[in-house]
Amino acid sequence: MNKINRVAIVGGTHGNEFTGAYLIKKFEQIPALIQRPSFETLTLLGNPLAFAAGKRYIDKDLNRCFFIENLLDCTLSSYEDIRAKAIYQILGQTSNSQVDLIIDLHSTTANMGLSIILGSHHPLLLQLAAYLSSINPEVKVCYTQPEKGSNFLRSLCELGLVIEVGPVAQGVLNAEWFQKTEELIYSVLNYLQRYNQGSIPQTNNTLTYYQYVGAIDYPRNEHGEIQAMIHPQLQFQDYEPLNPGEPIFLTLDGKAIAYEGTSTVYPVFINEAAYYEKGIAMCLTEKQLYSLQNL
Amino acid sequence: MNKINRVAIVGGTHGNEFTGAYLIKKFEQIPALIQRPSFETLTLLGNPLAFAAGKRYIDKDLNRCFFIENLLDCTLSSYEDIRAKAIYQILGQTSNSQVDLIIDLHSTTANMGLSIILGSHHPLLLQLAAYLSSINPEVKVCYTQPEKGSNFLRSLCELGLVIEVGPVAQGVLNAEWFQKTEELIYSVLNYLQRYNQGSIPQTNNTLTYYQYVGAIDYPRNEHGEIQAMIHPQLQFQDYEPLNPGEPIFLTLDGKAIAYEGTSTVYPVFINEAAYYEKGIAMCLTEKQLYSLQNL
Repeated sequence: MNKINRVAIVGGTHGNEFTGAYLIKKFEQIPALIQRPSFETLTLLGNPLAFAAGKRYIDKDLNRCFFIENLLDCTLSSYEDIRAKAIYQILGQTSNSQVDLIIDLHSTTANMGLSIILGSHHPLLLQLAAYLSSINPEVKVCYTQPEKGSNFLRSLCELGLVIEVGPVAQGVLNAEWFQKTEELIYSVLNYLQRYNQGSIPQTNNTLTYYQYVGAIDYPRNEHGEIQAMIHPQLQFQDYEPLNPGEPIFLTLDGKAIAYEGTSTVYPVFINEAAYYEKGIAMCLTEKQLYSLQNL
Repeated sequence: MNKINRVAIVGGTHGNEFTGAYLIKKFEQIPALIQRPSFETLTLLGNPLAFAAGKRYIDKDLNRCFFIENLLDCTLSSYEDIRAKAIYQILGQTSNSQVDLIIDLHSTTANMGLSIILGSHHPLLLQLAAYLSSINPEVKVCYTQPEKGSNFLRSLCELGLVIEVGPVAQGVLNAEWFQKTEELIYSVLNYLQRYNQGSIPQTNNTLTYYQYVGAIDYPRNEHGEIQAMIHPQLQFQDYEPLNPGEPIFLTLDGKAIAYEGTSTVYPVFINEAAYYEKGIAMCLTEKQLYSLQNL
């Protein structure tokens, strides 16, 4: 990887995730906060109409609109499809302002703490993630890239990452997460500055990360109606081990439903509000160690 | 007050407050849970279209549509205005099925715990509230009735009360709050059964309740945009004393803003997601003691 010349910070890709949207507003008011000597930092409010309406999206989920074939498909004309194409023009590889790294800011109703979701296994991203989790034990690292290409905004460049914080309710600005996200952004920018200077900080030799292996939906009846809730013992237990036979759901009439997998997994995005409509009660991950000496 | 003949339990008055909506679904599947020998219990899903869409409302807030003049105004034809008129026909004083008591189920992103909001100072409601808070110290009692009539659903009958639980994100079904709300409903129904039998349980002689005295909006700029967040020291501190000079907001650029009132208040609904659009960052209450011997 050559020098980082341009970084984009995107917030409000989902209009009701206020942490990122208001950080963008702050950075636009005080640009010096995100300027670094060796690269340019752009800011972008992902979905301005949805943010103004306090909704996740207007027509469809913007953060599922970035498959390259969809970006090039002139027949797709929902608000978010058009917005995705505009963002592609601003940040994408064919634009004059092509960025080298994207930080996309999100929040979740799940207890994800201060999570970083990597868009690729690029060595720089892995080293950055190892550094961030070494200076702040609260930082967790996920890799949730689906196998067959990505429709996420962060996929617009190889160095794409999401900062995902929570639990925080949709439509709420929480000062604690605002401040923690802000600090994490500065750590990323400072790391990139030192990378450009050829003096990246020493870090651990191993990175612990959580690899996406699948998702589980809520139990539903034949009409698609939810028949069970996340079990109280699992609620807010993101990143904790879940063993076969342990309860994951509680039916409305009070019966526990056990996890039927064959090995220990680490659920994330447990009870994320926006995933009810996607048929996801939680995502399952495996905990992995990655040796940075391989890089 | 004569005998209680008919009770209505309403959930999903706000479509993204899932606790109440799914309790209604449970009670409709297992009606025996809410039947008591001496009175009839009805259930009602307040806003079915908004619940199906996972939104608070379709056109406007249903729980602000119950001013009597609006219910009688034929020109009001939004989805929620029409729905309010239908609910008035089902539960109101002119209907054949007129109910004596309404329990309206809500949830909030604020740390309201297990709150009961009374629709009037009727002696039966006060005694019921005193009983519920005596058997469960987690129960808090509010009285937030505005002075000039009420536009809330609970105002359809003199014995109207809200069960308001949280913090829980919009669009999330949380098993813990589901179970706590369910238990509280059974306590209400059991109390009413004993009331009808002339054997209401002994309780404390005094009721602690929180009387609404006003609301505070977020600091905003000339475009109405929020310039500050709830201060981290105040977040989730519902029902705790707030003294003059203590911080209530934190500006986006990090400056604390102090409470400028002249006496101690007890904020509630701190950082409720649905109140951003109403211009309410928190409601203020005064803590009061009410002697039940006056009744």
